[in-house]
Amino acid sequence: MFTVRTRSSDSRARTGTLHLRHGDVRTPAFVPLATKGAVKTLEPRDVAALGYELILGNTFHLLLAPGPELVEEMGGLHEFMRWDKAIVTDSGGFQVFSMGYGGVADEIKGRGRMKSGGPDPDGRTGAILSIAEEGVRFRSYVDGRERFLSPEASMSVQAALGSDIALVFDECTPFHVSREYTERAMERTHRWLERCLRWHAAHASPGQAVYGIVQGGVDWDLRRASAAVVASSTADGIAIGGSLGREKAQMHEVVSWTTAELERLAPDRPRHLLGIGDVDDLIAGVELGIDTFDCALPTRLGRHGVALVPDPAAGWRVDLVKGRWRESRETILEGCRCPACATGFSRSYLHYLLRARELTALRLVTLHNLWFIARLMDDLRAAVDAGRLPELAAALRGGAVPGSVANVARGAPAPGIHGA
Amino acid sequence: MFTVRTRSSDSRARTGTLHLRHGDVRTPAFVPLATKGAVKTLEPRDVAALGYELILGNTFHLLLAPGPELVEEMGGLHEFMRWDKAIVTDSGGFQVFSMGYGGVADEIKGRGRMKSGGPDPDGRTGAILSIAEEGVRFRSYVDGRERFLSPEASMSVQAALGSDIALVFDECTPFHVSREYTERAMERTHRWLERCLRWHAAHASPGQAVYGIVQGGVDWDLRRASAAVVASSTADGIAIGGSLGREKAQMHEVVSWTTAELERLAPDRPRHLLGIGDVDDLIAGVELGIDTFDCALPTRLGRHGVALVPDPAAGWRVDLVKGRWRESRETILEGCRCPACATGFSRSYLHYLLRARELTALRLVTLHNLWFIARLMDDLRAAVDAGRLPELAAALRGGAVPGSVANVARGAPAPGIHGA
Repeated sequence: MFTVRTRSSDSRARTGTLHLRHGDVRTPAFVPLATKGAVKTLEPRDVAALGYELILGNTFHLLLAPGPELVEEMGGLHEFMRWDKAIVTDSGGFQVFSMGYGGVADEIKGRGRMKSGGPDPDGRTGAILSIAEEGVRFRSYVDGRERFLSPEASMSVQAALGSDIALVFDECTPFHVSREYTERAMERTHRWLERCLRWHAAHASPGQAVYGIVQGGVDWDLRRASAAVVASSTADGIAIGGSLGREKAQMHEVVSWTTAELERLAPDRPRHLLGIGDVDDLIAGVELGIDTFDCALPTRLGRHGVALVPDPAAGWRVDLVKGRWRESRETILEGCRCPACATGFSRSYLHYLLRARELTALRLVTLHNLWFIARLMDDLRAAVDAGRLPELAAALRGGAVPGSVANVARGAPAPGIHGA
Repeated sequence: MFTVRTRSSDSRARTGTLHLRHGDVRTPAFVPLATKGAVKTLEPRDVAALGYELILGNTFHLLLAPGPELVEEMGGLHEFMRWDKAIVTDSGGFQVFSMGYGGVADEIKGRGRMKSGGPDPDGRTGAILSIAEEGVRFRSYVDGRERFLSPEASMSVQAALGSDIALVFDECTPFHVSREYTERAMERTHRWLERCLRWHAAHASPGQAVYGIVQGGVDWDLRRASAAVVASSTADGIAIGGSLGREKAQMHEVVSWTTAELERLAPDRPRHLLGIGDVDDLIAGVELGIDTFDCALPTRLGRHGVALVPDPAAGWRVDLVKGRWRESRETILEGCRCPACATGFSRSYLHYLLRARELTALRLVTLHNLWFIARLMDDLRAAVDAGRLPELAAALRGGAVPGSVANVARGAPAPGIHGA
């Protein structure tokens, strides 16, 4: 289900194609989130027009509402949400275990603290009732009902959703736990991997690919052991999950350990990096041999009025809510052909709309961010194919504009009105 | 600035064209609200693709934020919001006086009560500081600052915004006041009309048209007197404002009195009915000789998950939030080619998205509603031109689907995916 086209001679970077039931996906690729069955603020036609070929739906959220039975009855997630390209579903492990550890991403990424209850920063209550070898019992944030997720249950939900790629159910551990805890969770994840693959082989539709997940926290030997177990399994692809450390340097190191092992043990299987989407991490991830990435960042930032721009010193971000843009005639990014920039919306207008809480603004910044990331990935793929990734990576890290942001794509609006 | 094409022999209905600085507007037309400089949830390209040629911006809200100085500095409202077709701005009179009377539309439409302070149903505080012949002093809901609107101030703001049509500043009275109060307010409105026209003649850009406003509440003699005053002025067009009564029958009667007078006194000037947009009221309004209508209804209903459908018994509405749609495979409206229906989104999916508070759903129902109203107006225009308005009106009142909803328009998506 994966063919490699070009392997870089300078790094583990590579280009390829995922051959999925709902079409091909050119890699390396970023995968926007359609957490609850919609890319927030956008329609499927918008996402396709931006050039995306794969989106990610969330097993945990879709299990709770509207429920896999309804989605299946409606013909599966593709038909339900009217998206005819590929979908990957995560397993729900990350969300379930995040409930026990508090702030979802923060804790996994080492920024939070373990917690035993009370509302998390998203206003949810840590609602794990029990964690056992069989699976995890928890309380639904939608209706308060007791629910259960296990390797078999997760694969069954993903079969009902009909995704092109299912992820195995893993025990996702945060940064602030002991090596022993991480190791025990990793070993359980390996046992759950086998249960997932067994269920999948027996019950899932043949066209659905399944990815194993490498755990092991920030320990080199655990990551190596986990990579070996997943590589030796029948999983079609391999995802990298769990805690990747407290800082970016550590994260890149952990990813590098893992992809080095995978390059040795499973060089032809696709690799997905879970939950990572900062611009610098995408560049580094491609260099380290990652094929696909998913992350809430571009869409979530968009809804907070933060736009992605080629400004490494500013974290590749500009906060349009800030007062300094009140009178700015600039578009978000000079020369950018995203639906917001090509139409000519000024930072001044976007700033005003964001302050006025107009929903149109959330959509416009989301469109820009997803356009920016899609074109960045276009450029990274082209550079790998041309043997020029080091030059492009250096230029991007120096603040160069991804050349493809100036491309005119299908679905893009005509040149700005008033001849601008 | 207005040419009549066809006058119906069965009623006061007529078709025509408004010739405005930013293009022609075919009438009768519905005018979507871009209250704060954006049609909520949509981009300008969406509004144009739906077929709209005129939108309404709100002087009161744009005065408070971002302020006419900024909009003017940015090149005017068209340039600021990147809409190159026509814009009408209301005068702010309705909003300013609504602050004193409580719930904006409720009170004007006879459903509320006069109030002296405290938050209104929209959470705002009645913040009028003084009403005098010179103008109205009030407190801004944005920053608490004292602000002032008068005939000259309103026209000056509208000149800065650069709208194609400006409305005169009027004293807008609610239903629950005495005839004497309504009469005094009407007479002030007439004096303010002259001040507006004087300011406009001296200062406004020559390309901006200006509409007077007929007041007079629900009294036949006051409406007649007001129509005569406005018709005898130099206003380019005539709007009908103020309280139109407690029930639809009374509203239609008040509109009929007024258009009968206007037909006699100013047959060639365009007529706008302020704040009315129910489907049955649009049909009745066209029959009564109204050329343009503005209303928050289609967009506001859309954001509440209520879709417009040809079901007169249900008020031409279906509430997609209701549980009965949980498993419905139907689109909003069979055969409809709006971006939501043509893509094939089921009521089940929209219901789920609305319950999950996904912003995509607000956009989709808004697109459907504005499509439905635009096509309804297409059909009404065609029927007037063909001399078949009575037949069409009867059919629509009997629940017939406006034929044009099945049209394929520019900007509409390709046929639904999966061959649906």
